[in-house]
Amino acid sequence: MPKLVLVRHGQSEWNEKNLFTGWVDVRLSETGKKEAHRAGELLKEAGINVDVLHTSKLSRAIQTANIALDAADQLYVPVKRSWRLNERHYGALQGKDKAQTLEAYGKEKFQIYRRSFDVPPPTIDPKDEFSQVGDRRYADVDPAVVPLTESLALVIDRLLPYWQDEIAGDLLAGKVVLVAAHGNSLRGLVKHLDNISDEDIAGLNIPTGIPLVYELDDNLKPTKKAYYLDPEAAEAGAAAVAAQGQKK
Amino acid sequence: MPKLVLVRHGQSEWNEKNLFTGWVDVRLSETGKKEAHRAGELLKEAGINVDVLHTSKLSRAIQTANIALDAADQLYVPVKRSWRLNERHYGALQGKDKAQTLEAYGKEKFQIYRRSFDVPPPTIDPKDEFSQVGDRRYADVDPAVVPLTESLALVIDRLLPYWQDEIAGDLLAGKVVLVAAHGNSLRGLVKHLDNISDEDIAGLNIPTGIPLVYELDDNLKPTKKAYYLDPEAAEAGAAAVAAQGQKK
Repeated sequence: MPKLVLVRHGQSEWNEKNLFTGWVDVRLSETGKKEAHRAGELLKEAGINVDVLHTSKLSRAIQTANIALDAADQLYVPVKRSWRLNERHYGALQGKDKAQTLEAYGKEKFQIYRRSFDVPPPTIDPKDEFSQVGDRRYADVDPAVVPLTESLALVIDRLLPYWQDEIAGDLLAGKVVLVAAHGNSLRGLVKHLDNISDEDIAGLNIPTGIPLVYELDDNLKPTKKAYYLDPEAAEAGAAAVAAQGQKK
Repeated sequence: MPKLVLVRHGQSEWNEKNLFTGWVDVRLSETGKKEAHRAGELLKEAGINVDVLHTSKLSRAIQTANIALDAADQLYVPVKRSWRLNERHYGALQGKDKAQTLEAYGKEKFQIYRRSFDVPPPTIDPKDEFSQVGDRRYADVDPAVVPLTESLALVIDRLLPYWQDEIAGDLLAGKVVLVAAHGNSLRGLVKHLDNISDEDIAGLNIPTGIPLVYELDDNLKPTKKAYYLDPEAAEAGAAAVAAQGQKK
């Protein structure tokens, strides 16, 4: 039975500073490293033997996977990376302080940029220090795919081909698949798997560092509700993520 | 111009204890982690931008690569892993104390097992706690490839197909290739690249944690002598490895 395990990276250096991150390649904070270690312990305790790992191209997801698989004693698993698992690109908001952004755009637009399904933030200047145009991380793909901004809808558009070919391919070959990625790329994947509406997805908060397990049938439909390996911590974590959304 | 960078993992928990390791999947010691971090700094200082990483299936090589690429700010590079880059399998010696082995087999045989080109140590019992028969690290390859012992000659036999297809393929595509592996798999690769005789290879010692750079022509022949990114430290490191070979 195909098994898919999703893990969202933990706190980054910019989460701490309350900056919009998106595709800016910041690292995990010490707290984030501890969260990743805990994720690996949870995998080990649950007896989950990963067959293949998929990560985004961003260091905070890769660090999370490296630390978690080290803690789970499974460093040896094959790895695939793709920009298609990256966090949502936050456009002109990348590198900006959240409080300042709220002041600059007003509460309504700020909430739209954060949580609307299909309205992207203003585009980033390609020459901005926080733009990824020309970044060698993406030197192996068509330069046209590096975005200047993204809505969640656009994230899903670029995520689904990777799901359909790479992740689904591994699942259908009978592999246990671990995906280490980001709040919005994982929300996109969960929206697809659980068939969540464009309206309802805004209310879904994925906690950091707690593996979420999908057991799937041969058509890659969930055979039961996906479950977190530490449900209590997951509930508290999701509430914390939701609260962060309210914070000025 | 194809560029190949080799890095041997640093001190492991068993190097510290003077045990034969081979395919036993022990981790880096704290000293080994520092060596890996230094390797990454050297890559960064030399301005080497890695395009693809190849590692063995053993955690100490994978940890070395993960730590080095983190220090070099290049965690995002694609990764390939293969048992063909693993350390030499030390047969029945795996897990044994070096001093005890010397006593059990005598000085002559001990030296032959350590340094002969084509005489492998006695085979390990497949049920020995330090055998890798049935290890899920190798669940994705023909079970017949998991050895019970190996000479350096046998290491080269199983290494070369991976060099010819995977590493050479990446080099010929114009990529900068980093290989994170082990004393004996890297000696095998260096023997092949530098055309070293079966007799002379015994005298070659590769220091740990110092990137060794090959610049190659389109036939994958070195255009000049390979060089270490920190030549002074490499010389001291090679002498230390040689001295370890003398140690009781």
